[in-house]
Amino acid sequence: MAITLGPNQYGKAEVRLVTVTRTGETHHLKDLTVSTALRGDLAATHLTGDNSDVVATDTQKNTVYAFAKQSPVGEIEDFALRLGRHFVSSFRQITGARVTIDEHGWDRIPVDGHPHDHAFSRGGEEKRTTVVTIDGDRSWVVSGLRDLVVLKSAGSEFHGFPRDEYTTLAETDDRILATAVTARWRYQGADIDWRTSFAEIRRILLETFATKHSLSLQQTLYAMGAAVLEERTEVAEIRLSMPNKHHFVVDLSPFGLTNDNEVFHAADRPYGLIEGTVLREEAEDCGSAWQ
Amino acid sequence: MAITLGPNQYGKAEVRLVTVTRTGETHHLKDLTVSTALRGDLAATHLTGDNSDVVATDTQKNTVYAFAKQSPVGEIEDFALRLGRHFVSSFRQITGARVTIDEHGWDRIPVDGHPHDHAFSRGGEEKRTTVVTIDGDRSWVVSGLRDLVVLKSAGSEFHGFPRDEYTTLAETDDRILATAVTARWRYQGADIDWRTSFAEIRRILLETFATKHSLSLQQTLYAMGAAVLEERTEVAEIRLSMPNKHHFVVDLSPFGLTNDNEVFHAADRPYGLIEGTVLREEAEDCGSAWQ
Amino acid sequence: MAITLGPNQYGKAEVRLVTVTRTGETHHLKDLTVSTALRGDLAATHLTGDNSDVVATDTQKNTVYAFAKQSPVGEIEDFALRLGRHFVSSFRQITGARVTIDEHGWDRIPVDGHPHDHAFSRGGEEKRTTVVTIDGDRSWVVSGLRDLVVLKSAGSEFHGFPRDEYTTLAETDDRILATAVTARWRYQGADIDWRTSFAEIRRILLETFATKHSLSLQQTLYAMGAAVLEERTEVAEIRLSMPNKHHFVVDLSPFGLTNDNEVFHAADRPYGLIEGTVLREEAEDCGSAWQ
Amino acid sequence: MAITLGPNQYGKAEVRLVTVTRTGETHHLKDLTVSTALRGDLAATHLTGDNSDVVATDTQKNTVYAFAKQSPVGEIEDFALRLGRHFVSSFRQITGARVTIDEHGWDRIPVDGHPHDHAFSRGGEEKRTTVVTIDGDRSWVVSGLRDLVVLKSAGSEFHGFPRDEYTTLAETDDRILATAVTARWRYQGADIDWRTSFAEIRRILLETFATKHSLSLQQTLYAMGAAVLEERTEVAEIRLSMPNKHHFVVDLSPFGLTNDNEVFHAADRPYGLIEGTVLREEAEDCGSAWQ
Repeated sequence: MAITLGPNQYGKAEVRLVTVTRTGETHHLKDLTVSTALRGDLAATHLTGDNSDVVATDTQKNTVYAFAKQSPVGEIEDFALRLGRHFVSSFRQITGARVTIDEHGWDRIPVDGHPHDHAFSRGGEEKRTTVVTIDGDRSWVVSGLRDLVVLKSAGSEFHGFPRDEYTTLAETDDRILATAVTARWRYQGADIDWRTSFAEIRRILLETFATKHSLSLQQTLYAMGAAVLEERTEVAEIRLSMPNKHHFVVDLSPFGLTNDNEVFHAADRPYGLIEGTVLREEAEDCGSAWQ
Repeated sequence: MAITLGPNQYGKAEVRLVTVTRTGETHHLKDLTVSTALRGDLAATHLTGDNSDVVATDTQKNTVYAFAKQSPVGEIEDFALRLGRHFVSSFRQITGARVTIDEHGWDRIPVDGHPHDHAFSRGGEEKRTTVVTIDGDRSWVVSGLRDLVVLKSAGSEFHGFPRDEYTTLAETDDRILATAVTARWRYQGADIDWRTSFAEIRRILLETFATKHSLSLQQTLYAMGAAVLEERTEVAEIRLSMPNKHHFVVDLSPFGLTNDNEVFHAADRPYGLIEGTVLREEAEDCGSAWQ
Repeated sequence: MAITLGPNQYGKAEVRLVTVTRTGETHHLKDLTVSTALRGDLAATHLTGDNSDVVATDTQKNTVYAFAKQSPVGEIEDFALRLGRHFVSSFRQITGARVTIDEHGWDRIPVDGHPHDHAFSRGGEEKRTTVVTIDGDRSWVVSGLRDLVVLKSAGSEFHGFPRDEYTTLAETDDRILATAVTARWRYQGADIDWRTSFAEIRRILLETFATKHSLSLQQTLYAMGAAVLEERTEVAEIRLSMPNKHHFVVDLSPFGLTNDNEVFHAADRPYGLIEGTVLREEAEDCGSAWQ
Repeated sequence: MAITLGPNQYGKAEVRLVTVTRTGETHHLKDLTVSTALRGDLAATHLTGDNSDVVATDTQKNTVYAFAKQSPVGEIEDFALRLGRHFVSSFRQITGARVTIDEHGWDRIPVDGHPHDHAFSRGGEEKRTTVVTIDGDRSWVVSGLRDLVVLKSAGSEFHGFPRDEYTTLAETDDRILATAVTARWRYQGADIDWRTSFAEIRRILLETFATKHSLSLQQTLYAMGAAVLEERTEVAEIRLSMPNKHHFVVDLSPFGLTNDNEVFHAADRPYGLIEGTVLREEAEDCGSAWQ
């Protein structure tokens, strides 16, 4: 029979884990969404329904919760590595794992100017992310962020593009540039201060977006990625996906009004979508990092 | 014929308006979602399709954009009043209007420790809101906020509730209390420093949530509303809607582990929903404010 | 103290209930989202955190599941009445209840041309809805539907509207008319064949939308509501909310192409929003039906 | 400099295109969401902001609309091929394209038992999809469907899985199996009756889901994919992603009630997620089809 099973994985998606740890009166919060996926020789369940090698997705969920108790969650990269290695080392037929974690931020509520011990407010929709891939005794860490929405109201132009019979867009030397950054960067090595690295990369992305004079969103994207690679030697490669969230200047001339980049319509769809990779030429091969 | 037209309104919903104003090199951003709805004697269009009194919703949208240019948008309450009064005073059959505005926050991106002149990042999903109702020459302003997600990991109990044949919930003297606050407050008068009032009410809501020891979410809700009324005499009434975003302690005993309020499952649905009003007894009647 | 508790209610929202009943080999599915809210003298919990009258929302959830077992769910109106009356009759301080149910449709999967006994596919996003309000020994039933998306590509005009300085919209005698109908109708009496009534009202709404030549969406809305009242004497009042989902003719003239209502851009926001009520003049008062 | 530009593409995402064609009095509707992405030597814009090779995403949008007028849209695969080949053949530096189309279904509204000429209702959230990849003069077509939500209330078991210290799940020989199918299949060749092929593959997926007795969702997934490959020789490979939408039997024993698979809680998160590929061993290489 020429029909066969190809690549496959299975797991539990979006386990909503919140942990509270206490230092004296002060509480610390971790709010994570954890997804686990296992890989290996899983032909039996696919072909005959023999589940003797299928670690139940319910068991995977339980493991996430139990691990969160057994030692402090710590940085999401470490927690993902710990989970992934557990599954691969514990079950005969499970030879690979992918653990994906989103971290949701919380800020302390200020009371009389002081951050409160145990009361928090949600810090926006931006997520810190990691995807850890285990393949046998190898591992890859791809961390990132998502839904970082930014806008600059000056320092952005777009002109010089080719004009064919379907081109109507006017050239501009002053436009709003807005996007929701999704960034994922592949680390080389695993002996990394994840928290500092994340904070620094996020700072570099934001500062470069703000200060780089932009002739195209592609140029901004590349500058952001290159700045990360220049400053952070622990990063081998960064992939950026940046929708162009169009802000159109409203034509107020029918009402006898000028509009010198003052009043904009923020459009939903369609939107531009710019995707690109910046990488270190001498970096080690990406292996299974992105699969 | 005993069938007749009852209450009705129509308008343009969710006009996405972004404005940029400049003070020297410094740019200021307003990001609003504006909905307008008009009321009056609109029987003709409903019964015969005679549109001679139907101010097109497209015209309403244009008016929003033009008004944003003709003078600074300012506080959302003022902009909504200006728009609503325009429609009611300009068209014979339009005797009422409701203008709803959500304001989306942006923060300046810090560069080298200084807030940038013209680069911004989106400040979360929380919205500042207003609903202005115009009825002839009267007006009401109901302002508020939405999607203010808060959590406290101590200082919350729930016990003493009645137990019937369908009750299984255990009593607790220590639980996570989390909610997404929707608050709407009705102002008395219109000569108000809207910006300061909003900031203070938001502060009071947050501080009360943080510091009030909670025996029920209802008690927290009432305390939050009462604190606003006590401190802010410009508010006649406040309505709060607060889902109880359950965080369940995970049972780790099958794994031989304790769980002393350390590891939680954050549930999506179902959720509790607590809704209540706190009002000033001597306040003026609410009129059409909430219709 | 002049600050006081106003109207309030609390309950469990969005209990996801699925039931399977069996007639021989044939399975029948009910897929409901049930929300309960209780009302009464609830001052104690708000003011002091005394919960002796607070039927836990967890108990409300349990009651929904237990009732679904104790007798067949049947029509959503009957199930909501049964639940609401239970809460009001069982607890001293609970004098009112509101039960809201959405029903999600499933179709049988056809196999070899025959509907399958126990395999189903989801029938779209449209929901059948009911909101039952109990106040002491009185009750009101408001049923409806939501997310019924319809479009007609002919038979719709819009002209004759007033033109002011902000009007740019062209008049048209041929446009796409598209909307997502939300309808809620208030029944008089409760001795009603809910299933047949729903099916007939849905049919009338659809047929009227399709066949009524439209000079405005308001005219279409009124015609749809009036047709329901004319044919269905059990309905006292119907409220319709119909966004105008704009389909704009794309200007192809820059490319030397005509566009005779052939190619459209379906816009997301802003959208028109038309809301109206059609009612029977002699109908009984609506009481608490809509509160 | 060791930092370099890696793989990249850009385009216009989610162009909402609706077309109406007329056969006498009968109107035909196409409702598509079209995304285009272009590839090639785009280093200049990334490195220096030189846009002389950047076909504006606005131009890409215009092209979609113009092509929809210039000849009938037809099947989404043909439309995507036409668009992709146009971009690759028209611009010097553009050597590849990816065109993604979702098709949204509409049904004719029945009036007096007859399908209406020009009035339609939306047929659910399921989408027919295609992704066409052009690389020079080669092309690949991957079609599929998304959001096909199915449930079977019998014929599903899950047992025999390994038990470790974190396993608590009970074995079952009777459970609800529910999922939202995402299927993507790669065609070999392009001389295909796309419409018939889609309809047949959809039928096979549904019938197999309904009739295959399931010992695991993996087994069901494989059976669905294998059935497609067995019957449809034009398909080289099929990838399926199927969340396990858990329906948990509610424990009614605290209320003295049995629950023999009658009353279920439909959970949101977490959910299982089963992903797998079924392929023809002798099939041609997938090339850039999935990139």
